[in-house]
Amino acid sequence: MKRIGLTVAYDGSNYCGWQIQDNGRTIQGELNRCLEELLGHPVQTAGASRTDAGVHALGNVAVFDTDSRIPAEKFSYALNQRLPEDIRIQASQEVEPDFHPRFCESEKTYEYRILNRRFPLPTQRLYSYFYHYPLDVERMREASSYFIGRHDFASFCGAGAQVKTTVRLVTGISVQRNDSMVCIQVSGRGFLYHMVRILAGTLLEIGNGVYPPEHMREVLEAGDRSAAGPTAPACGLTLLGIEFLEN
Amino acid sequence: MKRIGLTVAYDGSNYCGWQIQDNGRTIQGELNRCLEELLGHPVQTAGASRTDAGVHALGNVAVFDTDSRIPAEKFSYALNQRLPEDIRIQASQEVEPDFHPRFCESEKTYEYRILNRRFPLPTQRLYSYFYHYPLDVERMREASSYFIGRHDFASFCGAGAQVKTTVRLVTGISVQRNDSMVCIQVSGRGFLYHMVRILAGTLLEIGNGVYPPEHMREVLEAGDRSAAGPTAPACGLTLLGIEFLEN
Repeated sequence: MKRIGLTVAYDGSNYCGWQIQDNGRTIQGELNRCLEELLGHPVQTAGASRTDAGVHALGNVAVFDTDSRIPAEKFSYALNQRLPEDIRIQASQEVEPDFHPRFCESEKTYEYRILNRRFPLPTQRLYSYFYHYPLDVERMREASSYFIGRHDFASFCGAGAQVKTTVRLVTGISVQRNDSMVCIQVSGRGFLYHMVRILAGTLLEIGNGVYPPEHMREVLEAGDRSAAGPTAPACGLTLLGIEFLEN
Repeated sequence: MKRIGLTVAYDGSNYCGWQIQDNGRTIQGELNRCLEELLGHPVQTAGASRTDAGVHALGNVAVFDTDSRIPAEKFSYALNQRLPEDIRIQASQEVEPDFHPRFCESEKTYEYRILNRRFPLPTQRLYSYFYHYPLDVERMREASSYFIGRHDFASFCGAGAQVKTTVRLVTGISVQRNDSMVCIQVSGRGFLYHMVRILAGTLLEIGNGVYPPEHMREVLEAGDRSAAGPTAPACGLTLLGIEFLEN
């Protein structure tokens, strides 16, 4: 028996998220189905990030076990021939038998994209959140600096999360504008439920002038979800990649 | 009676092209329908570029006539409330009563996008052509220089076109790579049927090493469609914008 790791990219628009469900198509469900077709035995993949409905990924990671003789690096090609075109394996390789992508310490990088202009652009609508009011990126950048470091991110944790602690380490954040696209990139060791989308919603309320950049520090110190901005829509969020750290 | 000009952006993925048809949804059909709902009288829009099925636009231009009292610049907002989300008006304004966007001399700019990497990216699949073999952008750039200027582009004209002459003026061309996305931008005074897609198909055969850059000159001189490369798929093509020239 060997364990295979997959790097998985997807357009989340037409899925009920990563995690398998009884009702509704999921990324994990499609992966399991295609692997079972290919291997002829039941397969349960385990994913690193259980992204929400509508969230995209360039590099989520999943593992599964098999005793198939198919070489590990061939799974990307074999799966891509079976998967729907909105899911594509980017790499496959053999990993340690005890490697679990969700319980191994890792650094994840997310991007939240905001299309900031007068009218929506149809070719950007699926992969960004359209926001009409002018945004001051310099203010957003200043606010985002409070987010870096080890903090209690309770204010940035969506309801329904079951976690022992809301303390997390954010290792990097950037806010950039390219023409009308404002991109927030954030890297960290573990994220809370809806954390990046609540960060985006809070930065929007600073970029549009409702709050000053220092508001971000107040929100963090409040330790209360109601202090932060709204949860920004799923379509703007993409999991760019995951780096696994040695123990 | 006044004439209103619209700048129209669309995701062409789910349309049978610009031009109205009896069977199948078209951009023009949706525009006419929404204008008729808004104005309460029959409307026939006239477009600058009758883009093919699957081709996208950031700035196509259309005009229509009305004696409505709605201010010209309000049509963008009123139409965007009625149009499907894959069509969005970017600007509306009153134009000269005899202005016709197809018969007025203009310079159009198109972009052809090629995703050049080992595996497809689901979030790029609708707006680029996936091409797996490595492309040498320097060779494509050298080849593209032959395309600039006034030439007989008969080799780059798709079958079924009814034109008096296949001579056209190409005013600019660029080939750029951003990570794995290779973008060909071309500007000119009028384009032949499929001209940009045949250009892309021909540049692909030069970028992949099958032909040298000078092949582009031979293809132009041949004056025969069979000398050029295949017509690259519609999804990679976007009409970026149109500049109307004073007579």
